[in-house]
Amino acid sequence: MIATQALEAALNHATEHQEANLQQLLAFLRIPSISTQPEHSADVATAAHWLAEAMRHAGLENVRLIETEGHPLVYGDHLHAGPDAPTILIYGHYDVQPPEPLELWESPPFEPDLRDGYIYARGSADDKGQLYIHVKAIEAYLVTGNALPVNVKLLAEGEEEVGSPSLGPFIAREKELLAADVALISDTAMLGKETPAIVYGLRGLAYVLVDVTSASRDLHSGHYGGAVKNPINALAHIIAQLQDEKGHVLIPGFYDGVRPLTEEERRIVNELPLDEKAWLGEIGVRQAWGEPEYTLVERIGARPTLDVNGIVGGYTGPGGKTVLPAHAHAKISMRLVPDQQPEQVIEAFRRYVEEIAPPEVRVEVTDTGGGSVASVTDYNTDAVRAAMDAYEQVYGRRPVLMREGGSIPVVGDFKRQLGLETVLMGFSAPDEQIHAPNERFYLANYYRGIETVIRFLHGYGARA
Amino acid sequence: MIATQALEAALNHATEHQEANLQQLLAFLRIPSISTQPEHSADVATAAHWLAEAMRHAGLENVRLIETEGHPLVYGDHLHAGPDAPTILIYGHYDVQPPEPLELWESPPFEPDLRDGYIYARGSADDKGQLYIHVKAIEAYLVTGNALPVNVKLLAEGEEEVGSPSLGPFIAREKELLAADVALISDTAMLGKETPAIVYGLRGLAYVLVDVTSASRDLHSGHYGGAVKNPINALAHIIAQLQDEKGHVLIPGFYDGVRPLTEEERRIVNELPLDEKAWLGEIGVRQAWGEPEYTLVERIGARPTLDVNGIVGGYTGPGGKTVLPAHAHAKISMRLVPDQQPEQVIEAFRRYVEEIAPPEVRVEVTDTGGGSVASVTDYNTDAVRAAMDAYEQVYGRRPVLMREGGSIPVVGDFKRQLGLETVLMGFSAPDEQIHAPNERFYLANYYRGIETVIRFLHGYGARA
Repeated sequence: MIATQALEAALNHATEHQEANLQQLLAFLRIPSISTQPEHSADVATAAHWLAEAMRHAGLENVRLIETEGHPLVYGDHLHAGPDAPTILIYGHYDVQPPEPLELWESPPFEPDLRDGYIYARGSADDKGQLYIHVKAIEAYLVTGNALPVNVKLLAEGEEEVGSPSLGPFIAREKELLAADVALISDTAMLGKETPAIVYGLRGLAYVLVDVTSASRDLHSGHYGGAVKNPINALAHIIAQLQDEKGHVLIPGFYDGVRPLTEEERRIVNELPLDEKAWLGEIGVRQAWGEPEYTLVERIGARPTLDVNGIVGGYTGPGGKTVLPAHAHAKISMRLVPDQQPEQVIEAFRRYVEEIAPPEVRVEVTDTGGGSVASVTDYNTDAVRAAMDAYEQVYGRRPVLMREGGSIPVVGDFKRQLGLETVLMGFSAPDEQIHAPNERFYLANYYRGIETVIRFLHGYGARA
Repeated sequence: MIATQALEAALNHATEHQEANLQQLLAFLRIPSISTQPEHSADVATAAHWLAEAMRHAGLENVRLIETEGHPLVYGDHLHAGPDAPTILIYGHYDVQPPEPLELWESPPFEPDLRDGYIYARGSADDKGQLYIHVKAIEAYLVTGNALPVNVKLLAEGEEEVGSPSLGPFIAREKELLAADVALISDTAMLGKETPAIVYGLRGLAYVLVDVTSASRDLHSGHYGGAVKNPINALAHIIAQLQDEKGHVLIPGFYDGVRPLTEEERRIVNELPLDEKAWLGEIGVRQAWGEPEYTLVERIGARPTLDVNGIVGGYTGPGGKTVLPAHAHAKISMRLVPDQQPEQVIEAFRRYVEEIAPPEVRVEVTDTGGGSVASVTDYNTDAVRAAMDAYEQVYGRRPVLMREGGSIPVVGDFKRQLGLETVLMGFSAPDEQIHAPNERFYLANYYRGIETVIRFLHGYGARA
């Protein structure tokens, strides 16, 4: 039982090195690798070098930065588990969201603070903390002198928060380098901080910008109001016709590609023990909303949606100003489910908006190009079973299978380009405020995450 | 015919001093007296002192700054026309709108530039240029050693662009100081730069801020979209229910106070020679809009309206961000006609919005406090006839009588508190971009304005 001895040694190593593993993560979090802000591009590069060095230290081989037109990819592997052992492709990202608005942070976003059992810092949960779990799990095998039970390839990118423009082409080009049996990503949320979950479905995304223009300049609302169409009022009329008040999208053809949920899927999705009251309380919302013919968990992960993510027009300073603005702008995202295609959805959006737009204004619909298809992973696989076992051993409960509302476009690329199913093994919790001020990561889940991945590598190696 | 000699002398003086009168106005325009921006309050005070000095130089007496809780009023008079001569109360404002967005100005807003026959500067048309016309017209009589044909009181304020909070109480308190036979204001537009107009009706104003809040923090639209009501979508639904696509306001009770237009008024209003194609061309709008059962000129000045003047929510930077924002905000103004009351209109607005607001969000309606009633001035008076004669002598055509869309709350205060009708004798043109970048004032109308006021003072003195 050499494999079991290796597992024990790795688990012991991880337990004994908790403090060092924490300090290293805090150092990683101090680098403000904000990929969306050009003034931080040197910091993004610093984070890439830092990560590569940590991967080398962990015992990974062939570690290198791969330059792109934007921020570099970081790659490393360890392929000595033997020809019969499976290969896992692990993915994560080392870039982070902008921290703004800064005034809402209780401690500075890039000075990690330990409070109430949490690490507070931008990137702690999304995704540096979860990515670093894998580095530390691999290290626990390799520095104890034991072989890894599987072959691993680790790929990290620095452009996830800007829509991964370089990653898709890279995957398409480097099929041999990235060849594997399964992909593994920790960039999703558990159901709660004590309740593990494996996400098997992710929504896709279509994103459009809508610009409404009336006059060639801002006008005085007293002199022109009532005689010139107001582009903000026009935009509001357009938005109000996109979706009814119950959440049904009114764009003709929007639901055409939607694959109906099977009975089994509805059963699995609805097994999710979601405490609606606690869920609402955590976000300060008085009552849930959405398509009444679907349950709350179905609405969250299994139904397509439409949201205005931003709107701006006219005077936005304090108090009032009597301007009839020339222009209004909205950013609208649609989350997609299988088998909706972003291009078709955007085309249907454009056609409909052109049809309902008032004749007195010009309306322009722009595809941001960040679209992705939804993905549903096969959960009847050795990898998913090994992941469920590993979670159960660490958390004392079997994880739930769930579909999730967000989008991780790389999952679709792995499937299409490399033929891989992806195991989404998240360690973040829903209240960890990713993309928002006071992002945090539950410290216990950082340690349990390392243990879970150690056990998963062992279990998957034994099953395969 | 001493009066006629005085008129001739004043006209000659104005003609001979055009260059000096221009240079003084440019100096006035260089002071960035932006009343809405606290960092410019010293500049507003500088402009008040500058104006007082110019009034003293013109020969006005009792010139003084009157302190308020905000920016000072400037007062001066000349009351030597004899007990039988009428007294005119002239009003104007020396504060200006913020110049933002600065990048759209072709020359800096506070460095006046002469191009194509125009003075380009913030405040050139609204209202420093028009206010200064009166100072120069008075000066033309007094420095030539001639008596003014009427008594004059000149009152200028520095808070017009912030809603004149100090002016109403001051007028109510100082009825004796301000007692007069008629009020005169140059702060409206002509029909075109060669076509004078006397505005006899002004719309009133009700202004509200609407805040829609759902969650206690911004949420990830992937994780919560479709299950939590989006406040921007909710706000768009609310706005879309305020007004139909033809321009009819849908708030119950909104039209209750509207006094129907008389046949005579409709006739006078529609005599306005508005060239719709040129009017649209000047503002770059492809087609006019509004209540189809009213003519374009009726919509502009004689009908109540509703406009969203500003809207903001969620992410407003470049590209997209998948946020489900916690909050959305809109600024909404309603232009009122006689006899709508702003308080009643705002109460009807609040009741209706509370009724249509979705139950999943919190909606707050705030009155900005800048409301005013509409005013219609009697145009069958000596003062209006004298004004029409003066315009005709200078411009070679009789001015049109028109109702205008904007609001000048002081006109209502003069009527209610002092019993005065106001003559609105504007010299700005509709394409002079007041409240917008590249505000300008047609230089010829500055000079013609001085001549028109000189002739008006003479003509009104002779009639009364």
